Amino acid sequence: MTSIRHDSGGFFSIEGIRVQTNWGRIKTWDQPIINQPEIGFLGFIACKFAGVLHVLVQAKIEPGNINTVQLSPTLQATRSNYLQRHKGKRPLYLEFFNGEQRCRLLLDQLQSEQGARFLRKRNRNIIVEVDSAEHLPPHPDFRWMTIGQLRHWMRVDNLVNMDTRTVLSGLSYGTHPSRSVDAIVSFLGGSDRRALMLRSALNSDASQHSFREILSWITGLKSTLDLQVERMPLNALNGWKMIDGMVRRPDDKYFSVIGARVQIGNREVAQWDQPMIKPAQEGLLAFVVKPINGVFHFLVQAKLEAGNFDVVELAPTVQCLTGNYRLGANEYSVPFINDVLNAPAGQVLYDTMQSEEGGRFFFEQNRNLIVEVDADFSVIEHPNYRWMTLHQMLRFIEFNNYLNIAARSLLSSINLSDEILEEVNR
Amino acid sequence: MTSIRHDSGGFFSIEGIRVQTNWGRIKTWDQPIINQPEIGFLGFIACKFAGVLHVLVQAKIEPGNINTVQLSPTLQATRSNYLQRHKGKRPLYLEFFNGEQRCRLLLDQLQSEQGARFLRKRNRNIIVEVDSAEHLPPHPDFRWMTIGQLRHWMRVDNLVNMDTRTVLSGLSYGTHPSRSVDAIVSFLGGSDRRALMLRSALNSDASQHSFREILSWITGLKSTLDLQVERMPLNALNGWKMIDGMVRRPDDKYFSVIGARVQIGNREVAQWDQPMIKPAQEGLLAFVVKPINGVFHFLVQAKLEAGNFDVVELAPTVQCLTGNYRLGANEYSVPFINDVLNAPAGQVLYDTMQSEEGGRFFFEQNRNLIVEVDADFSVIEHPNYRWMTLHQMLRFIEFNNYLNIAARSLLSSINLSDEILEEVNR
Repeated sequence: MTSIRHDSGGFFSIEGIRVQTNWGRIKTWDQPIINQPEIGFLGFIACKFAGVLHVLVQAKIEPGNINTVQLSPTLQATRSNYLQRHKGKRPLYLEFFNGEQRCRLLLDQLQSEQGARFLRKRNRNIIVEVDSAEHLPPHPDFRWMTIGQLRHWMRVDNLVNMDTRTVLSGLSYGTHPSRSVDAIVSFLGGSDRRALMLRSALNSDASQHSFREILSWITGLKSTLDLQVERMPLNALNGWKMIDGMVRRPDDKYFSVIGARVQIGNREVAQWDQPMIKPAQEGLLAFVVKPINGVFHFLVQAKLEAGNFDVVELAPTVQCLTGNYRLGANEYSVPFINDVLNAPAGQVLYDTMQSEEGGRFFFEQNRNLIVEVDADFSVIEHPNYRWMTLHQMLRFIEFNNYLNIAARSLLSSINLSDEILEEVNR
Repeated sequence: MTSIRHDSGGFFSIEGIRVQTNWGRIKTWDQPIINQPEIGFLGFIACKFAGVLHVLVQAKIEPGNINTVQLSPTLQATRSNYLQRHKGKRPLYLEFFNGEQRCRLLLDQLQSEQGARFLRKRNRNIIVEVDSAEHLPPHPDFRWMTIGQLRHWMRVDNLVNMDTRTVLSGLSYGTHPSRSVDAIVSFLGGSDRRALMLRSALNSDASQHSFREILSWITGLKSTLDLQVERMPLNALNGWKMIDGMVRRPDDKYFSVIGARVQIGNREVAQWDQPMIKPAQEGLLAFVVKPINGVFHFLVQAKLEAGNFDVVELAPTVQCLTGNYRLGANEYSVPFINDVLNAPAGQVLYDTMQSEEGGRFFFEQNRNLIVEVDADFSVIEHPNYRWMTLHQMLRFIEFNNYLNIAARSLLSSINLSDEILEEVNR
């Protein structure tokens, strides 16, 4: 078997690649990867009720979901889906995203998916705002929620799906020309820590590095790092075998490609077969944050992954499979792993299990952590790490292929846009 | 012959590709293309003399140069060059760009080269500022010039090389928080047309489209346009033949790949052989500009080319080979070509022949035109065109792979950074 594809040629396929790079410890490896050249929609309809922005959330079942149902965007559709290539039903609310209905645009940008699993995959992250919900009749699978409510549900394990998290991470905090950062922070109130985070979201003057310096750091890495990806037949990959109807590794590492027969009542098609990616272990995604100049800074990693669209993307401080460190420090050590795993409870700002996308990944979850480190934590960076404010990261999210999906997932948990917008607009 | 490459595997190679797309009139074609996966430096050293920014310009000879010598960046070096893979001399001033000497950074970004000729090629456009020119001993091939002087020389045919133009296009105009646009425009004075251009460079409030709308337009195009590029042996390309030692088309269209033996006295290596691209005709690059809301807007084209890194890039209103329209309107028509070619002399803001890079292209030149159109010129856009201010285009230049090299070449001719910076800093 050289690849696994749908009879129609649509949807996605599982293919083999051989990777060569001058980045990291391992310079060459083979792996299966998902190839989905089609760009799909991940979209929310938004509407203000009593002046507060709400988004229309879908309770959606995917075959790989932990918890079966997860809070998903209004529209989540591949090009094969929305062009009805599978002869299925037309996705609900499509007309608000494809130009048939005219709406105000809050966000519309391509963003990357997991570079270790997808070959240069991107989706269209989009939020459209309607003036009134009158023309959206209630549907049992859909509910209006505020950003604050979604942020609340993100503190529950595996409830808010990956697609919701990536779209929310791109929601702009708006500009605030007429009010000072101090005035906004003071009005919003709350703890010192909250003030540090608000300043990080709003303020770019107090940043450790200028935006230009950060751009230059990325340019330097892209200029000197090599990433060569060559297509290989699945059955020719070193270290991978077809075993019991699965493509997997005899050493059980990383993941396997399994076949699934899916039956879901309320979908465009009631039953289908598809390949899925089943992880060998959980992962860990963690940001280290530290107050510098009175503003929270995030220690951001430039990470090269096989399927990256543009060599490196900005990633959390720690992004690894748990097997990487559970096998003992002698195999190899992940930088900052001890700071993250041994943080005192009082310094853990966020700690929740979050799922990868249940349409492709079978029960895959990552521990999402944000940890504040002490003042004596060094601010000197490794060559692949830089301290950035939230404001600087949000500026990158405006453009495609800068922040990776793991970083965006973590940032969505601290999306402060509803509070800040309320204050800015008052 | 399946490809043309250097014995060392370095520098660049000429390879064949087969292109399939759903963009434009011709959906599939074969062509030779330059493959240069290495990212090189295009860099200027800058220094202020009496408060005015100067850059260190090199008089450089390249084998394909019209005029033999062109005004070039301080450093222009491929990775093979600066790592001395050819056993040649170390490029002058390299230490200011590779981190050995600490300098202030004015610009450091990857930018694309010609998508119709290069396969996903990018170079590192960089400007570093030194506090004093003391440590840069005079050299007969180098001179300090202001941005205004370079802009002056850009009005002379084929004198300022492509690399100088692309680097200058990325020079920031700075921020101006303390002074209003009106105050700056009034202080700088000049004609009404100059005021329209200054407002375009500074002001984003009066733009026809919000930046978010323009991002969404690009996202929509990237989401629906297909660009598949498959490698082919050179001798298997449809429409191309090896004739008289050249790879060319029997119908003489587009370009040919020729061999050149080069002897230049003052280079790292005194003599070498290399393939070059020889064009079949001149090209035309033109921006249509129009005052909208008291601000010059540029009609920007989203253009797909075979070697583009990310499907489409923002291009001038007209970008074509002259053969495309000289063969008569029946073959096919280029949008807006008549507006550009038949503009009254009083509405032509810029009209100069500019060279492509003489290290790869043999005597290739394009007519660079900027033409103001009348108030009755429609502001309604074709799906692949949008009106943008200079300020909006400069915001895209900050990030990689948005503006193509033809657009950047034209923008460099109206770089107003020296005047604006002087005013902002006064």
